[in-house]
Parts: sequence; structure tokens; C-alpha cells
Amino acid sequence: MVKVGIAGVTGYTGEELLALLLKHPQVRIAGVFSRSAHGKNIADVFPRFKNRIDMVCQKLDAQSIKKCCDVVFLALPHTASMDLVPQLVGAGRKVIDLSADYRLKDAKVYAAYYETKHKDAAGLATAVYGLPELARNKIKNALLVANPGCYPTAVILGLAPLVSFGIASLDSIVIDAKSGVSGVGKKMAEGFMFCEANEDFKAYKVGTHQHTPEINQELSVLASRKVAVTFVPHLLPLNRGILATMYVKKTRIKMQAKNLQDLYKKFYKKEPFIRVKDAGVFPRIKEVAGTNFCDIGIKDSGDSIIVISAIDNLLKGASGQAVQNLNIICGFAEGTALI
Amino acid sequence: MVKVGIAGVTGYTGEELLALLLKHPQVRIAGVFSRSAHGKNIADVFPRFKNRIDMVCQKLDAQSIKKCCDVVFLALPHTASMDLVPQLVGAGRKVIDLSADYRLKDAKVYAAYYETKHKDAAGLATAVYGLPELARNKIKNALLVANPGCYPTAVILGLAPLVSFGIASLDSIVIDAKSGVSGVGKKMAEGFMFCEANEDFKAYKVGTHQHTPEINQELSVLASRKVAVTFVPHLLPLNRGILATMYVKKTRIKMQAKNLQDLYKKFYKKEPFIRVKDAGVFPRIKEVAGTNFCDIGIKDSGDSIIVISAIDNLLKGASGQAVQNLNIICGFAEGTALI
Amino acid sequence: MVKVGIAGVTGYTGEELLALLLKHPQVRIAGVFSRSAHGKNIADVFPRFKNRIDMVCQKLDAQSIKKCCDVVFLALPHTASMDLVPQLVGAGRKVIDLSADYRLKDAKVYAAYYETKHKDAAGLATAVYGLPELARNKIKNALLVANPGCYPTAVILGLAPLVSFGIASLDSIVIDAKSGVSGVGKKMAEGFMFCEANEDFKAYKVGTHQHTPEINQELSVLASRKVAVTFVPHLLPLNRGILATMYVKKTRIKMQAKNLQDLYKKFYKKEPFIRVKDAGVFPRIKEVAGTNFCDIGIKDSGDSIIVISAIDNLLKGASGQAVQNLNIICGFAEGTALI
Amino acid sequence: MVKVGIAGVTGYTGEELLALLLKHPQVRIAGVFSRSAHGKNIADVFPRFKNRIDMVCQKLDAQSIKKCCDVVFLALPHTASMDLVPQLVGAGRKVIDLSADYRLKDAKVYAAYYETKHKDAAGLATAVYGLPELARNKIKNALLVANPGCYPTAVILGLAPLVSFGIASLDSIVIDAKSGVSGVGKKMAEGFMFCEANEDFKAYKVGTHQHTPEINQELSVLASRKVAVTFVPHLLPLNRGILATMYVKKTRIKMQAKNLQDLYKKFYKKEPFIRVKDAGVFPRIKEVAGTNFCDIGIKDSGDSIIVISAIDNLLKGASGQAVQNLNIICGFAEGTALI
Repeated sequence: MVKVGIAGVTGYTGEELLALLLKHPQVRIAGVFSRSAHGKNIADVFPRFKNRIDMVCQKLDAQSIKKCCDVVFLALPHTASMDLVPQLVGAGRKVIDLSADYRLKDAKVYAAYYETKHKDAAGLATAVYGLPELARNKIKNALLVANPGCYPTAVILGLAPLVSFGIASLDSIVIDAKSGVSGVGKKMAEGFMFCEANEDFKAYKVGTHQHTPEINQELSVLASRKVAVTFVPHLLPLNRGILATMYVKKTRIKMQAKNLQDLYKKFYKKEPFIRVKDAGVFPRIKEVAGTNFCDIGIKDSGDSIIVISAIDNLLKGASGQAVQNLNIICGFAEGTALI
Repeated sequence: MVKVGIAGVTGYTGEELLALLLKHPQVRIAGVFSRSAHGKNIADVFPRFKNRIDMVCQKLDAQSIKKCCDVVFLALPHTASMDLVPQLVGAGRKVIDLSADYRLKDAKVYAAYYETKHKDAAGLATAVYGLPELARNKIKNALLVANPGCYPTAVILGLAPLVSFGIASLDSIVIDAKSGVSGVGKKMAEGFMFCEANEDFKAYKVGTHQHTPEINQELSVLASRKVAVTFVPHLLPLNRGILATMYVKKTRIKMQAKNLQDLYKKFYKKEPFIRVKDAGVFPRIKEVAGTNFCDIGIKDSGDSIIVISAIDNLLKGASGQAVQNLNIICGFAEGTALI
Repeated sequence: MVKVGIAGVTGYTGEELLALLLKHPQVRIAGVFSRSAHGKNIADVFPRFKNRIDMVCQKLDAQSIKKCCDVVFLALPHTASMDLVPQLVGAGRKVIDLSADYRLKDAKVYAAYYETKHKDAAGLATAVYGLPELARNKIKNALLVANPGCYPTAVILGLAPLVSFGIASLDSIVIDAKSGVSGVGKKMAEGFMFCEANEDFKAYKVGTHQHTPEINQELSVLASRKVAVTFVPHLLPLNRGILATMYVKKTRIKMQAKNLQDLYKKFYKKEPFIRVKDAGVFPRIKEVAGTNFCDIGIKDSGDSIIVISAIDNLLKGASGQAVQNLNIICGFAEGTALI
Repeated sequence: MVKVGIAGVTGYTGEELLALLLKHPQVRIAGVFSRSAHGKNIADVFPRFKNRIDMVCQKLDAQSIKKCCDVVFLALPHTASMDLVPQLVGAGRKVIDLSADYRLKDAKVYAAYYETKHKDAAGLATAVYGLPELARNKIKNALLVANPGCYPTAVILGLAPLVSFGIASLDSIVIDAKSGVSGVGKKMAEGFMFCEANEDFKAYKVGTHQHTPEINQELSVLASRKVAVTFVPHLLPLNRGILATMYVKKTRIKMQAKNLQDLYKKFYKKEPFIRVKDAGVFPRIKEVAGTNFCDIGIKDSGDSIIVISAIDNLLKGASGQAVQNLNIICGFAEGTALI
């Protein structure tokens, strides 16, 4: 039994982690930690967990976490994680950080997009970007996993085969992404009130979203060249799910597969959570919501390619992927608690 | 041209008033007033009104309002209206108050439900409860109209024929009411965030809602006897509309109509905004949303009667009814800007 | 390993059964049966199950089912079940029937509400009404379980303590129930099209719904007296969940508990799937959606009582309860695959 | 008073036409025509119009229409319009056709996308593509107006300034469009059932949608060169509204305006229904739903441009635009019944 903790348990990703870990047979929830709910029973915070867990939220500090956990999930707002990580990792605890604090390798880019100076250069250097399909071996031995953002998960998994094999022309990738409202977290802002978001749809942070550099960084690694995508996120009037529609121009490189579906199926052939659609069939949010799958559909349009990928933003895009990373770190079957 | 103003223009009812008054051929919007948006153009506050109105929000005080308006709508939070009304009425301005401040005749009941002492006994005494179908003549000459609450409008119109004719047993009326989220106004509270209200449904303020005494007061007037209903409101995952399902035991009084549909059709026969359904047909929110109608369906079940009424909470339940009252006060055709 | 089958796997309850049974460690899905999808792989019918099950739908007849299953779930339309049950039960297969065919003990009442003559009097006589909280011992040895309807489950569990202890006056029970759209099944009718149901709310089958006699029958058993409730169902613009608000007059019988919450908590004290709320707190659909729980809140209002209960109509109201019944029949832990 | 008719009044666009024309002071609804509702009162078909119109649906044939109408709106399925148009136009009636039958100038393209041979070459030759902002003068004298498709309206208005002035590189235009469910009409298909579309989002007809050639045709006219866009439509879980996000590469042509916002504002400066957003601000569906406006936002991103446009698919994308065309044809103020 591995003793795990959830720091920041009252947000959407914390809630999902709790739901997943309650079903995990090789894990014991050793502590839940919260600033706002410190002292409250987590089953009072989330009545849906009544009769399933009976545990009081502890103070959210490194001391409390270290005392009871082997592995801890940080489901914290950006910038809060890096205050805790050095002490936790220093004390030999493994950390899976769901915030953005350790995703961007370049502290300057971090500062530009998150409007705060990065405080933990050492952590940045050792953190592993936790996309299992592309970095499973590194994750296995990681002390600190930077769990990918929701949009980057959908986008990178959707483009990885094309970028890795040089099929995508790198200077004109267009990503039109759409996310359910839980993607913005539990922030209380007018735009996320029911009457504002319901029956509405809009783009936001056009060309300025903080996930852009994360996508660029990881695609650049795959391409071994600098990539700069055009990325426009939109807000869907539904609770959970991301669908990204991606438009790619082809290079002149010849494909080593009879078609794109085949290329993708080979690329992901051992992946338990990637489902490549047959030609003419495309993902829909409904088929991935509530699951840890990433579904991918591809259309070959002569000079260009359209790729559509879909995930549940709270699962494969956050807490599900975090548990997948836990399973890899601990040597459990990768789908435990996820299938 | 009557010069009208809207005080508290940035809330949902203010926004609806603006939309209605922009279509009103006998009215000039002479001023819009707001605390939070003072100095801003109303078309920037509500981009949907761009190209339709170009007007800066004035300071929200009696002085500003008096200077430019003949009639003013107060679309203010409860307790804010009674600070303004004495000065406005004193200066000869007509006031249509959409808050609850002048609805309850008994200041003690007001204090109990709105948790504040009433400050304007004189206003309370002269205010007319503005349900046109039951008080048209009084409204005509009113200086101060207390525009009814949304739930009371649906409920009182639904029960008035039964209570007036002594057909309803008064000691066991059950009202199970359901409202869209705009009914709670633009308050920013966790329960009204998209991800909380979407795909959810719940009762709230069970047996304690502030519209209960308003319903009781008006039904008591109709019955010439004290009425105390059981009232449970619920929150629907949709933007606008109220549907109230009401359960009534019959008295032994014999009906003066061949059936209940007939009774209702006669009672409301000259009413432009009441539509009584034929037997076996019942209202739905979709058919009244965006309109000033109140639809009513009735089922005779032997010893008991089920009445279902539906309105748009922001129109017949608030701003539409307010404009209907304006039309009555000013002698305009009652449906102007409403049909 | 118990070999189970699902007949009628392509509807909403069939889909839920599949999802639950895939997580059940003591069960092997031995066959799925369908008229419309005969010959198709179930993972093509429901792409969400891709990578999780790979099984072709068999012909839907008794022969096919008998050949491979020990226990079979019939997720069929009403009247289709009774064509299969005699052969299955005759061959020693255990049957959990999710249709209404074996719920009503009186074949005349069945004929009146389902507009067809009942064909299996013998089955009717032996079938056990499968509400585990009230009939666990009978279910244990049943050959044929009539899985309760969704509304009756919410209503009967909500009222059972009051009716059993004689606290509820039986001649004036009012049940105002609201269900998500999946409650009507996968029927293609105009009223269930997205644009019709979205942003709408309405009552339907007012006073004539086929679940009324089922509720009356089971409450009559509890009361040892004939009960006839007033039942009005409504359609909520959301996918899943039922919330029932029930209005009860008290008898003069004195309660054997310090308050109603206590009474309910004692009544249900060993029940894994019933959660009684503390005073002043009421259920919401969000807290039971996706679970097999029934949450119950109670308000004592002097002469009357308001009870609110909530379930997921597809789980505790159908497939979850069916798996709970399977667990009881097979001697598995009752929460297996459900918690 | 112009006598107008609506053929195909029971669909979504027919219903919207009725709502608009009831508010039009210079028009008399002389007849409504329907196959499915022939003989029924339109207020029974749409109870929301009770108390507002009392008119029986006539047989849907040229004879009936000619007898009572000066101008007729054809709100018919594709291919049904061209059976009526020759007789109507031949008899001197003006026709505004909301179907796709007269939008595509090339009958071969029509046959390819609508899977039927075109029957009215003469009509095709004289029909005017009715986008008022680009063809007002032609519409003024047209006998037959081909009312534009919903997606093409949003797309063409969004791109017209860039394409007209040669700023858009024509070989790589990407259009990622999203529409509410009413966009597909009142078809009864599984994908448009509430439980299927609610909480879902997906692309459909990827690269094969019938509005693609319509967009290409009209952009080619503006560019005086063949244009072939990449167009992917998606289905939003909301009732009404389209938002199109368009990605354009710049040519080397120098802009004759200080920025793109200015360029657009000048291009559309006299247009009552086009609202160009300031830099950094983008449209949302909520601000155009229920209106005839097309809102446009533009982002200049160095080598490329992102344009976002939004309309109500049933108004500016169908019935609103049709009434705008009626107003132009009849010489009424263009905004009558629309603002």
C-alpha cells in the first residue's frame, strides 16, 4: 500500500483525484490537505463522497504532507506548488504536480506567461514532463513529475506522430481548441456564472493563452526544431471535455505507412489510453468524458491534414493522467483505477 | 414621449428593461443609472446593445434621476429601493419598483424575511401591488408600484380563480415551483457557477423563501381570509423561466362553470397576457420564455386540482410586468413593446 | 465467475449495465444480445467501450441467452420481457428484468397502464419486486427479479419510513417528481430532441403516469392499507438524475425518534446506498449522479412533512440497482462494481 | 401593406419568420403553408403564438401561394424549393428562398453536394445571392433571392474585407466553425436527441459540408480568383448561434488602413447589422443570439490574421436575413422588425 496525499483537495482536480484514488486497490489515501477547508471533513466539502471517505482536511504545509505521505499530488493553483516542492522532494517524497509550475523548462517563459518569477531552478531542471505516451521511462524514475496541461495533452498527443516523422510543416500549425467550463477551475468570475456560460460560446485569450509555450516546447522536442503554433482556445457550454481541431500543412517527406490512420495506430500501438479512429470517423467529447482515453481522428486532405483529438480535461487532461503517472512511478498496472 | 429612467441598469432585470424600452415607441430612455457602471457607456457594459443605444450610466442618486425622468424603474437589490423612493415620489416622479421593498404591507414581515427594518412606512401605505390582472385600476393612478416577485406572479395568477371563488381549500395548498438560474440575479455565488448548476437540480430555501409571505398576503386578499401555503422553490439548469405546479384540495362549493378550464377562461377573458390551456394540455417554459405571457393548465382530479402555470421570470415575472405597469400608468396600449 | 448476459444492450440501461459489469471482478460478460445491433461489435455501437470490450451482439432470443448465461439482465422495452422470461426461468436461468413487465402484481392494472394483456401469470406470481432496502431476503432466493422503476425507487425509499411507521396520512400524499431526459429511454420523439428539451421544463403525463400504480402498490404493502398518491412527473433539461419532492400530512401517531432525521437514519442504518441528510440540508442531483446512492432530506413543518429524495435514474433507478440485485442473488458484497 | 406568405412554416426557420413578421408594421401575413400541418391552426402547431395569430395552414402548392401572396418565403428543405419557384416567379410573385436550391450558380456543384439534379436552370441564372452587405443593389430588383446559408453568412462577412482588398492569401484559409443544434433543422436523428447532443461536442462532415462550395463561390467572386477554403463545422450543445474562427495568412499587399479594425470598420461603415469589435475584443454567441447582427473580431498576428465572427444562425443566418432582404426588396427601412 502506497500512502498518497492530495494537496489542494477542494478544487475540481482534487475532487477527481479523490474519486480515482478511492477506487485504487494499491493505494491508501493518507492525507488530504487544504487551505480553505482545513479542519473540515472532506465528505462535508463534497457530499457525493459521504459513506465513502471520512477524513478531515489537514493544514496545507510541507510538514503535514511529509509526515504521512510517500507520494503527493499537488492540485494547487499555479505558483503555489513551487513553494512546497523543494521541501517535499528534499525529504524524499515523490511529487506529481498538477499545476503549471514545473512544465516550462525556461524560467523566463514561465515568468512571461504566469506573471511571477520562478523560485525553484533546481526543481525545474529535474522535473519530468509527465506525458506517459512520450516519456514513460523518464517518469518511472522521476522524483518530480510536471503533469501536463489539459490543452497540451490533447494537442501534443494529436500531433506527435506527424511532428515526430517530419510530416507536419512546422511553420503553419493551427490549433482550434474547445474546452468545457471545468477547464478554468473553480474560479468565481462573472464569465463562468451559469447564465453567462450557458447557451454561449466564445474564444478567449486569443493568441495569448499560457498553454501555448507548453505546446511549443514539447512539439519542439519532438521535432528537434523550434515550433511556434497558432493556438486559439474556446469555452464550451458543458462541464467536461476538450476537443482540439488541428490544421497541418504537409511537408514533402514521404509517409512510411499506407495511410495516416495506420501511421497513428503504429505510433500508439501499445498505448492503453490512445484510441485512433478509422478513416472517416472522428472523436466526440461524449466518448471520452469520464474516461482517461485520448481519441484521435485524422483526415488526409491532399496538401493538408486535419487532426481532431478529444480528452476529458479533468481526467486524461489532469487527474487521470496524474494517477497514470502514479501507476508508472509505483510500478502498478498503468490502467489501475482508470479503466 | 414619456421620459423614463432605469436605476440599477446592469443587473438582469435592468438589462431586460433596456431591451423592452428600446422597442417602445412612446417612451424615451432619458437616463440609466448604476453604482458599479457609473461613467461607463451602457453599450460597453452590454455589447449586445451596441449600435442600438449610446448612453453613459449616470450616478445612482435621487437627484440625477429626478432631473431627467418622469417615470423611473428601480431594478435594485432589496433594501436599496426604499432609500430612494421617498425623494422620488416626493418630487412627483412615478416609481415602478422591481425590488421587494414595497410588496409586503406588514413591515414586521418584511423585517423577518429581508433581515432589515423597513424605513418608509408612508411608502408602504401608498404602494400598489402591481399585478395588472388583479389590480389594474389601482395601478392606473399609482405613484408607486411594487412590482410583484417572479414566483408570486406565477403562483397568484395560477391560483386566483380557485381562491377567489372559494373552490380551493385554503389550509393545504402545496406549491412546488421551479425557476431558471437568472431568477437569483447576477449574484456571484458558488452555487450559481456553470459547473455547479449545469446538470444539477435541487430545492433551496425549503419552507423559508422570502416569496412565501408575498404569496400568502395576496392570496389572503383574494380569499378574504388568512392563507398559509407550503412553498418549495427549486433551481432549474436553464437561463430563464418559472414553472409552478400547485396542488389544491377542493372545498364543497359548487363551481359556476361547466369545468375548470371554462372557469379560468372566464376569469381571465379580457386579459391579453393570460393563456388558459385546454383540458389535458399543460404549459411548458419554452412557450413563455421571451414573452410576457402567463400560461396556465388545470387538471381536475376529483377531490383535488392540479394547476400548472409558467412565465418568463425576467419578463412577466419582472421587467415585462414592469413595462405592462408603465403602459397602464401612462395610458398606453397595455401590450406596447411586449407583443 | 458468474456468466452474465445483457439482453437489449443498446439502450441507455443496457449501456450502463455494460459499464458496471466491465468493472465487476466476479462476473464475466458472457453475451450481449440485441435486435437492432445483432451482428455488430458492441464497441462499434458504443465507441466509448473501444479497447475495453470486443464482443459481437448475438441474436436476442431465449435460445442464445440460455446457451451462455447463468444470469441475464433484460434491458428491454415493456412487453418484450414477458415473451422471454418463461423460457429463461424454465431453463433455470436467473433473470433480472429492468422492464415494467413483472412489477405490477395485478395483471388488470398492468393492462390498463401498459395497454397490453399480460401473458405470464405464473411469472407475475413468483417475481420479487427488487428494492433491496425493503426486500433483500426475498431477492436472495429469487429466480425472477422485477427491477423497480426509476421514479418508484426514489419515491418509495423517500416515503418508506413515514408510511411504515404510520406517520404519513395516506390520503393526501403529493409527489412532485423531476427526471432527466435519459429517463424516457432512447426513444426518438420530437419532445426529446435537443432544441425542444434544452432550456425547457414541463410536466408530462399529469396524473396518468404508469409509475403511479407501482408506487401505490408498494406503499400499500408498507402501510398494509390501500394508498393512492398524487404523482406528477416533470422533464428536466439534463441527462441523468431524478429528484422527487414529496408533501405529506402527519397522522396523530407519535414518532419513536427525537426527530425525523433520526427516524430515517435508524430505518436505513445498515443500508450502504441510502444517505440521510442532516436537518436543513437537502439532496441535489449532482451529488448522486453517477452513483448508486439515494440521498434523502426531510423537513418537519409542523402538521406536514416535506421529503426530498434524489437518485441517478440510470443507476439506483435502473442498472445500478439491477447490479445490486445481482450481487445479492450471487452472494457478492452488495457494493461490488457500484462503489 | 405587402401580402407575404411563409411556405414550410413548421420548421425552425418558418417559426422564426412568423415571429419576425408578426412584429412587422408594413406587412400582412396573408398565408402560411405546410405539408405536415395542412389544415391545422398555426397557433396549435406553435402554442407560443397563441393570442397572437389565428390562421389555418394552407396546402403547400404554387396555386395556393399565388392566390394570396405578393412575396413568399420558402422555408423548405433543399430540393423542394425548385419545384415551386418557376410557377411562382412565372406568376410575378417575388420569392425569397431559404433553401440551398438557388445559391450555387453551377448546377454540377449543386448535384454533387445535394445529390440531386437541378431542375431550374433559368431560375439559377436569375437568382441573386442575398447577402445584403455585398449585394444590396442587386437584391433591390431581384425576383428571386437565394437567401445565404448560415455558415456562409458568418464566414463571408468575416472574410470579405481581407479577400476584397487582397490581404488574405487565398490558398490556405482555414475556417473552424461551430453551430448550435437548431442549425441542422428539425430533423429527427439520433445525434440530435437531447441526451446525445447535451454535454457533447464534435466535428461533423469534416471537409465535406455542403456549405463549402457556397463559401468558395462567393469568396471567389470577391477575390476575382478561385478560392478553396478548408472548412470544418462542429456541433455546439446550445440552441442557437454560430461562431466561426478563421485563420488567414497575409499576402504582401500593404493595408490602406492603420490597422485591421479600422479596415473592417470602414468596409462596413454604413451597415446596420455589422458590428466590428475593437482590438483585443472578440464576439460571443450570447451577444448576437436573438438578433440580426453579425459581430466580428480581428487579431493581427504578424504573418497571419485570426478573424472571429458570430451570428444567430436562425436570424442573420436565415430568417432575419430573409426579412432584411424583404425590406430591401419592398423599400422598407432595412431594420424594420429586426431591431
